[in-house]
This record gives sequence, C-alpha cells and structure tokens, in this order.
Amino acid sequence: MTDSAQPSAVVLLSGGLDSYTAAAIARADGFTLYALTVRYGQVHACELEAARRVARDLDVARHLEIEVDLAAFGGSSLTGDGTVEQDRPPERAGIPSTYVPARNTVLLSLALGWAEVLGVADLFIGVNALDYSGYPDCRPEYLEAFERTARLATRAGVEGARFRVHAPLIDWTKAQIIARGASLALDYGLTHSCYVPAPDGRACGRCDSCQLRARGFAEAGLTDPLSR
Amino acid sequence: MTDSAQPSAVVLLSGGLDSYTAAAIARADGFTLYALTVRYGQVHACELEAARRVARDLDVARHLEIEVDLAAFGGSSLTGDGTVEQDRPPERAGIPSTYVPARNTVLLSLALGWAEVLGVADLFIGVNALDYSGYPDCRPEYLEAFERTARLATRAGVEGARFRVHAPLIDWTKAQIIARGASLALDYGLTHSCYVPAPDGRACGRCDSCQLRARGFAEAGLTDPLSR
Repeated sequence: MTDSAQPSAVVLLSGGLDSYTAAAIARADGFTLYALTVRYGQVHACELEAARRVARDLDVARHLEIEVDLAAFGGSSLTGDGTVEQDRPPERAGIPSTYVPARNTVLLSLALGWAEVLGVADLFIGVNALDYSGYPDCRPEYLEAFERTARLATRAGVEGARFRVHAPLIDWTKAQIIARGASLALDYGLTHSCYVPAPDGRACGRCDSCQLRARGFAEAGLTDPLSR
Repeated sequence: MTDSAQPSAVVLLSGGLDSYTAAAIARADGFTLYALTVRYGQVHACELEAARRVARDLDVARHLEIEVDLAAFGGSSLTGDGTVEQDRPPERAGIPSTYVPARNTVLLSLALGWAEVLGVADLFIGVNALDYSGYPDCRPEYLEAFERTARLATRAGVEGARFRVHAPLIDWTKAQIIARGASLALDYGLTHSCYVPAPDGRACGRCDSCQLRARGFAEAGLTDPLSR
C-alpha cells in the first residue's frame, strides 16, 4: 500500500512526449507517481532509454519496466512486421501499419495489475483522440469500457475501488500538449518520438510521429529541443 | 488470416484441466484452435509442460507461448509473493492469496491481440464461476465487460468484428467439467493442477486446486489418472 496522505497513480510512460506530459499533469495534480514502462517489442527501443530519463526527471516513486513480446503476434510495423510509413500526411484516413493490435488494452491491463497490488485506483495514459493517427484504442468510449472492465476484474474493484483511467490529453492537439508541457517546464529534449530512428537514435523526420511532433512545436510557436 | 471455410478460435491454454476441456469443446464445436499459453511467472511452471502436452493432444494449428512477468508486481502467492494456502476448505469466503491481480485481463488482452492479427473473433477461456475460488475475473459480468472493451479496442472491432469471449465452463461444477471431458475422451493425465507441486511435478493434494480436482473426480464417479 502507498502512503494515503498523498494519492498515488500508476502512469504509463513510453518515453514519448505525450506520456511525459500526462505524467507531469498527474504530478501537478498532486499524485505520487508509479511509472510503468512496457517493453512490448517495439523496434524503436531507444524509447525505453527516453522513458528512464523522463522517469528520473519526474522524480517518480518507482519506475518498473516489464517485458511482453507482442512482436510474437506480428501484425504491426511497430514491432517489426512490415515497414513504417513515411512521407505522407499523417491525417489520412484509416488505421496505419504502426497500429499494434490490442496494445493499449495490454498496457492498461498491466497498469491495472500493478495498481491493484499498490492499492492505487488512478491510472494515467497519454493517449489523445485528435492527433490519434486512427488508433481505435485511443477513443474515450474505449477508455470508459476499460474502466468498467477494471472494476469488475479486480479484488479491489469488488471491494469498492473505483478505478479511473485518466487521459488528460484526450481532446488536445499536439500543439496544446506541448504548450501545456512548456507551462510545466518539461524538457522535451529528454523524450523520443520517432518510429524509425537512426542507429544513433536520431529522428527520421518523416514518419507520422515525427511529422505530428514537428507540426505541434510549430503550431505552439516553440522550438523542439531535439531539432537544435 | 485463417481459412474462412472453418472458423478459428484463440484458446487460452494453461495446462490445467479446465482450459483443456474448454479448448476441447471449442474443437468439438468445429473451431480450428490457436492455443496461447502465457508464462506469467507462475511458480508452478510444470503447468507449462502440461500445456505443451495438451496442445499436442488437441492437434492445435499453432501453439504460441508468450512471457510476461507479472511476478514483478508481486501481490500473489501464485507468482511467489507469500505462501499458497493448503489444507482448508476451498469454498471459504473471500479471495485467496493465489489471486493474481488483473491476470485474466492480461491473458484476454494478449489473446485479443493475437486474435486480431489472425483475423479471429472467437476467444475461449476455461474460467468457471461456481468453483471459481473467489476470483473476481471469472464472473460472467466481467467477461461481458471485456467483450465490449475488445470491440472498442481493435481495428477489427471498428471494422465490424464481434469479438466473443466463450467461457463454456462458466456455470459448471468441477464434476460436470470432468464428466464432459470424459465424454470427449480427454486424457486428464496430461494436465497439471497443483499450485505447489513437488520438484518432480507431483501434486501436493492439499492446495485449493488439488482439493477441487479430487472432489470433482469423486463427484463425477471417475478416477483421476494422476492419482493412479
């Protein structure tokens, strides 16, 4: 059990810009942070290094890394099956090849398991529906369905815990996320966004994630520290 | 995508008696089986050997083993945190120490991910609510909530797939499960049920799982091949 004087939250931390901002909002809201990073076979493994930097910066109470090999299922360019799209408008219709089947359900299930052990009812995830690149498991109705499942799934839920999945960025643009992060003095130079980085970790600038990030900084009127 | 002439199902296979029977029912119902075994850090790892034997016996199209270290969270005697209860009536009130936080949600999420990649909408899980030992994530209302989450979570769901979580054993006693298995000519000598087996894999006969199994065979009027 965590200290009841200050509420705690389990935050999913990928090492990207969104989850960093969501976790920082949780901290600003008074939560003690338990950060969970899931190594699910993403080919852009330097995200994991970024997650460690971000966890240190956020002064989390604990940072747990857990591995689950979603690449065994195939079906996503993000875990090495096929090629990540580059050089196209990221707002085109349809679900991109980087969609990882059931990823957020797996991530939230793991966060739920840890939360129950910690005696924590609040989960934070950095999804957003506006810039969501067509991923179905970033929509509010999905998150509500997961909350209901969480309450029914757990001993804590049976005993009255009201699990909540907080998605503070859910209806924000990337520019709004970055502006909020700037107001919280976040150092986005710690993060990593690119789906197909160079061996030295440098961003490609051409995948959906790089394009959305670049446009977000531009619209927020800020300079990406990674582009300096 | 799997062959559309015969429907396929993803079946969660633990190596225990229940999941073997549930998978055999799926096969009897005409499904081609894709068996998923999750190594989640259970201390009774000889279950995994049993899962391989059972998968061979069921002639599954594919048997995938995937690892996720739920022991990292702690909180369950089944993953090495504390001691598994022995020598007590298994129907006592309350949730036992062998409860693994969010386990079935993690298992079903992984099954969902594989199902989506395979183009499969039917999942089978061997839970039952009557002999359920007090686990909240074995109740029908939980499974319905997960189905709804699954439909909202996935590209396939967005495109119209109706994911179904089949739990054919849900309201059966252990004796009814065993009787059904016998009618399907299942060899329960292939399975493993004990939570705290001896180093050579022999069952303790004293944990909840052993007690429920022994009573089930007795009530079904059958002899457990493992007891011979």
